[in-house]
Amino acid sequence: MASLLVTSLPNVFYLTGFRGTAGAALVGASESVLWVDPRYILQAREQAEGAEVIESKHGILNAVGTWLRKRRVRRVGYEAAHLTCADFDRLARKAGTRVKLSPAGSLVEELRLVKDAEEIEKIRGAGRITARAFEHVLSHVRPGVREADLAAEIEYRMRKMGAEGAAFETIVASGPRGAFPHARASRKLLEKDELVILDLGAILCGYAADMTRTVCLGEPSRRIRRLYNAVIGAQQRALESLRNGVRAGTVERAARQHLAARGLASFFTHATGHGVGLEIHEAPRLARGEKAKLPAGCVVTAEPGVYLRGLGGIRIEDTVLVGSNGPEILTPAPKDRWVLD
Amino acid sequence: MASLLVTSLPNVFYLTGFRGTAGAALVGASESVLWVDPRYILQAREQAEGAEVIESKHGILNAVGTWLRKRRVRRVGYEAAHLTCADFDRLARKAGTRVKLSPAGSLVEELRLVKDAEEIEKIRGAGRITARAFEHVLSHVRPGVREADLAAEIEYRMRKMGAEGAAFETIVASGPRGAFPHARASRKLLEKDELVILDLGAILCGYAADMTRTVCLGEPSRRIRRLYNAVIGAQQRALESLRNGVRAGTVERAARQHLAARGLASFFTHATGHGVGLEIHEAPRLARGEKAKLPAGCVVTAEPGVYLRGLGGIRIEDTVLVGSNGPEILTPAPKDRWVLD
Repeated sequence: MASLLVTSLPNVFYLTGFRGTAGAALVGASESVLWVDPRYILQAREQAEGAEVIESKHGILNAVGTWLRKRRVRRVGYEAAHLTCADFDRLARKAGTRVKLSPAGSLVEELRLVKDAEEIEKIRGAGRITARAFEHVLSHVRPGVREADLAAEIEYRMRKMGAEGAAFETIVASGPRGAFPHARASRKLLEKDELVILDLGAILCGYAADMTRTVCLGEPSRRIRRLYNAVIGAQQRALESLRNGVRAGTVERAARQHLAARGLASFFTHATGHGVGLEIHEAPRLARGEKAKLPAGCVVTAEPGVYLRGLGGIRIEDTVLVGSNGPEILTPAPKDRWVLD
Repeated sequence: MASLLVTSLPNVFYLTGFRGTAGAALVGASESVLWVDPRYILQAREQAEGAEVIESKHGILNAVGTWLRKRRVRRVGYEAAHLTCADFDRLARKAGTRVKLSPAGSLVEELRLVKDAEEIEKIRGAGRITARAFEHVLSHVRPGVREADLAAEIEYRMRKMGAEGAAFETIVASGPRGAFPHARASRKLLEKDELVILDLGAILCGYAADMTRTVCLGEPSRRIRRLYNAVIGAQQRALESLRNGVRAGTVERAARQHLAARGLASFFTHATGHGVGLEIHEAPRLARGEKAKLPAGCVVTAEPGVYLRGLGGIRIEDTVLVGSNGPEILTPAPKDRWVLD
């Protein structure tokens, strides 16, 4: 029987329960071995019940290779997307020529695609904290406030509400900075009449949520109102399409067609969504032409946006469970209170 | 002339100024090309002055490979430690057989080893914020407080003081949890007479600082006092050894011998330190037998610790500049106010 060498840390956590910042696991029908460095040996023995824990003092892949050679293992799959060329060389050198190493694709990611009830409950919890932190911070969003201070406030609130932390660096992008879809929160002060994008997400028990809201600091112009409604409409189309068995590319098309009908397709410069779970970006990708079908139990974002150089950006994003009875929004924060006076 | 394909994001930032979460750069005597996906195109053009920015819609390594083939490039070095096997395959497939791809070692990391005055000023700023955040939070460290709430408070303070964020997940580990060198802050409440490890660091302008202090919530036993003084002494030995040209292994030995003389060597379960800069862990490693010499301008941590199952841990860490006139501590927080009543 062949075994799989798992070097992606979220995959190691998923399979063994160990949650350190370095480690590798070998899983097969007859074995479950976890290599960690000396910093993590106590933690690994506590978290990874059922796995044999091996301490590696001189590089984890060296230790794995030596183990494979000594045990005369004949065939091992490896995660090509999560093993560097240098680590592969270390592994192969120590394992020797008798071990056949084969690239194995994203087997664990495929297992992770469908979340079980316990995982969904964790993402639901993360989503609830995310939504509440946004509602809390709304009262602070006004002209004269620094983007970075809002980001700090959001992350602080999420932690106080029980989150382990932020799933990614909170984005607060105001005015023209909003045209950069992944702008960091900066020292810029919010100004009157600007659009402000807030993109935030909590982690709870290792599971992430991801949500974006856009607000306007003053009465929006007719153009901005039209843009906002177009993005809301595009998200609505994406949400409606998120049914058990839909193709990922169909969700993307639903959102894009709504924007295209309003002449806005060229301003929508990224994919419509992505899976969320142990990682903030994981399978599936809701992008043009993606043929993968979304099964019930899959958790994805729906996040159309438009980005106009000079003016700024508008993005609306929720984390959504694809349920057998239709989609369930896991980040329940309002979208209608977007004009702040 | 050969070029180097840079896929480590801190290295891309170091060489081009672009600071997104995805991208790759090709640098050579005659060229500087940056590939980013559509999300980052505006940001890349703004940040990466002097580089030709190319938008890649179907995978960055696919785009790089196609470019190399079309330009009939003959030789390219790649970062073996930062390119996955899957990305290497994409690159090689698109580049075709006429392009020779060679593993290139850690060339950019070697450049990054010695910090210039501007970089040192950024780390000094990050260290100052880190130290002030610790001093601020000291008044909150008392029995009944949750580890995670202290971590939230620390990160909030660092942001309010101008940090871009935390350089790593802040560690607050109390009582027996301190025996895990990399414990996360948990929902556990601090208790009287416990040791508490606080490990924190701010990021400023992309540069990190790293600092640990340990405090005792009540009058320490004679044993704990002896352990604390041993760790302080070990750190002092490490700091004294941090002179221009010292070998990394010598610094490790200085700390370890001090603990060994007190019968504590087996409780010191990790390396003595690591480089700090654009990454929280970078070259050099201050570990046993490391022969690399530390040049002036190098920034490292000195962080001996002891970990005793059941009792907890004690670690003292500073970020230190190896100067031509001796070491300079960049995280100037007190170590003598460790008994909190």
